[in-house]
Amino acid sequence: MLIVQKYGGTSVGSLERIENVARRVKQTAKDKHGIVVVVSAMSGETNKLLEYCNYYSKTPDKKAMDFVVSSGERVTAGLLAIALNESGLKAVAMSGRQAGIVTDSAFTTARIASIDPSAMQAKIEEGCIVVVSGFQGITDDGIVTTLGRGGSDLTAVALAGALKADLCEIYTDVDGVYTTDPRIEPKAKKLNKISYDEMLELASAGAKVLQNRSVELAKKLNVNLVTRSSFNENEGTLITKEDDMMEDVLVSGIALDKNQVIVDICNLDDKPGIAADVFKTLSDENIVVDMIVQNISHDAKANISFTIPQSELERSKLVMSKFEKLGAKVAYNLDVAKVSVVGVGMKSHSGVASKAFTTLADENINILMISTSEIKISIVIQEKYGELAVRALHEAYGLDK
Amino acid sequence: MLIVQKYGGTSVGSLERIENVARRVKQTAKDKHGIVVVVSAMSGETNKLLEYCNYYSKTPDKKAMDFVVSSGERVTAGLLAIALNESGLKAVAMSGRQAGIVTDSAFTTARIASIDPSAMQAKIEEGCIVVVSGFQGITDDGIVTTLGRGGSDLTAVALAGALKADLCEIYTDVDGVYTTDPRIEPKAKKLNKISYDEMLELASAGAKVLQNRSVELAKKLNVNLVTRSSFNENEGTLITKEDDMMEDVLVSGIALDKNQVIVDICNLDDKPGIAADVFKTLSDENIVVDMIVQNISHDAKANISFTIPQSELERSKLVMSKFEKLGAKVAYNLDVAKVSVVGVGMKSHSGVASKAFTTLADENINILMISTSEIKISIVIQEKYGELAVRALHEAYGLDK
Repeated sequence: MLIVQKYGGTSVGSLERIENVARRVKQTAKDKHGIVVVVSAMSGETNKLLEYCNYYSKTPDKKAMDFVVSSGERVTAGLLAIALNESGLKAVAMSGRQAGIVTDSAFTTARIASIDPSAMQAKIEEGCIVVVSGFQGITDDGIVTTLGRGGSDLTAVALAGALKADLCEIYTDVDGVYTTDPRIEPKAKKLNKISYDEMLELASAGAKVLQNRSVELAKKLNVNLVTRSSFNENEGTLITKEDDMMEDVLVSGIALDKNQVIVDICNLDDKPGIAADVFKTLSDENIVVDMIVQNISHDAKANISFTIPQSELERSKLVMSKFEKLGAKVAYNLDVAKVSVVGVGMKSHSGVASKAFTTLADENINILMISTSEIKISIVIQEKYGELAVRALHEAYGLDK
Repeated sequence: MLIVQKYGGTSVGSLERIENVARRVKQTAKDKHGIVVVVSAMSGETNKLLEYCNYYSKTPDKKAMDFVVSSGERVTAGLLAIALNESGLKAVAMSGRQAGIVTDSAFTTARIASIDPSAMQAKIEEGCIVVVSGFQGITDDGIVTTLGRGGSDLTAVALAGALKADLCEIYTDVDGVYTTDPRIEPKAKKLNKISYDEMLELASAGAKVLQNRSVELAKKLNVNLVTRSSFNENEGTLITKEDDMMEDVLVSGIALDKNQVIVDICNLDDKPGIAADVFKTLSDENIVVDMIVQNISHDAKANISFTIPQSELERSKLVMSKFEKLGAKVAYNLDVAKVSVVGVGMKSHSGVASKAFTTLADENINILMISTSEIKISIVIQEKYGELAVRALHEAYGLDK
């Protein structure tokens, strides 16, 4: 069995913790598994290096930045290799280049273009544990790149795919994926298994265990992903292909996202293509729009409402000024929260949405916007009701049982 | 004109100092020179990374160590490239690998085997300043190596040779090579020019501006080497091929080395090959012997005296026990200092040695051992007279004029 393990920044946050990781790897190695370990930089290190770069410029040269920032993962990989060798295992540290990871040339946010796993495979066949510096690769002409935030997870998933690994374990400081945020609802339960699509909907709805890029790649490459804690022995959550059993579960989780803004545009001339014009303008600026509602008022003027992340607010205001010049009125509502109910069981069960609406109504929570997908219902409400809505829905769908 | 500049750890010891280096490079670039900059890790960084490695083992895996430790120079190279780009110059950071440096497989103390300068040359032709991470290369199968202490100087000299650069400037925190240590003799003068061989003799006699490996490589590759300070605008010292003018100067410098031990072996049977046996045994243990004196006493027993660095004392004692078992008596004298007078002018002038002996006699300093080369006289005396001897000889040869 071949396993790829990835340890994040807090898991390798000190020399002692790296030693702890070595112990875990040794434990896994006892069962004669082939092991590739992907590591992040020690926690704080990447931010320190980014600060160094920003000392010289608000927009430092991106190639040079990647050259600097990629060194953090090299240090951790080398140290873990030393600790593993010291514990009696054979281990070798590799950079992204040595692991065969080739990316495009989008420095600081590169995408993996191809992986040649032969160097890793040769070492695995020698009985060596391969420790790979996450978050990095090289362009096809040999220049160092980094993959952006969450890049080490992406490295692990991509390597698992290229090596046809049986399992890709992502170690963090949380036990796995929960039915909802345990800080909001202490009765939240850890999920043993969840489908890629549910995980993607939960993540986009504000649950931050894994980044969507990694889950999407795992789905595409058919990688069995496990997220678990490096600080205890608890089983984590398996994120895998949807199976029939999963549909028996109506709802898998409830997510809360308070980082949203509703943008209302009214008094737009109701001409064909006016909505397209609004959203093309936003997308040209790479502003990601989430929920959209459009309706036509009786005076033949269009009203469009949509949500954006709060981080995009200032840029959106600039974009919207174009339509204000054409007579549109634009209002921004930051006092909102998005609550999402996610579950593949929705596909084959009816009444899931109406239960959500009833539950919120019973709590006297007013609904501002609704959007649904095959496996998700998202509802925008006033921000102050966010936690209450999560707890009510968590109970209504029996997730605390 | 193509210039290679190397900046050491203190010169790049902080973000501000790296900015200062960028200013110096920009100044040099004004004169339309092609420039390759080699950088060390920020001061303290390499030691920190070595400590990290030693946390897990007294003898950490050397490959993994090189993987860790080489990252320090990468950070500096990237940061300098950012600072240069910000100042309006085009600059690119390169690792040892990207600069085309291939070494042997002696991890932690690798030797440069070959350099393919084509990637650097292509960038220089584009008008780019190339910033190379010093101290590192890769083996011919792509594994990261480091060159050991002083490795960044070596990188600079080797690159200057491969690029056929007109000049290789080594920036440190001292102004250049002095006639003697200014802390001992305040009247010491900075030398404008000195030959490779004189520099080698001064270094081996205890002057620590440059390591011998770098000077030897510069001599072999015919690289004009300048050592100067990055903290002021003073001209440094040019280390170059010996020329006729140099011979006009009788003595270039006086060096002091207090890090020596005299080993006396007496009562050895005076058989042929007995001295060879002693020194072969030492050399098999990689113990470097400096000065050697042998004489035969009237009772047909041999006495051999030689000097070793203090750091080799314990290992030498182990080696010498072999001869003690054969009846030899071995004594160690740590209370010694070696004073050396260096100058290519000695070749064509007589009386240099006798002046040294007279000068020391005038100061009532007893001579314990003498050895001479074509361009050097080394004299071992009691340690407490070291500084006095340096000052007296400095004046006797008119070096303060």
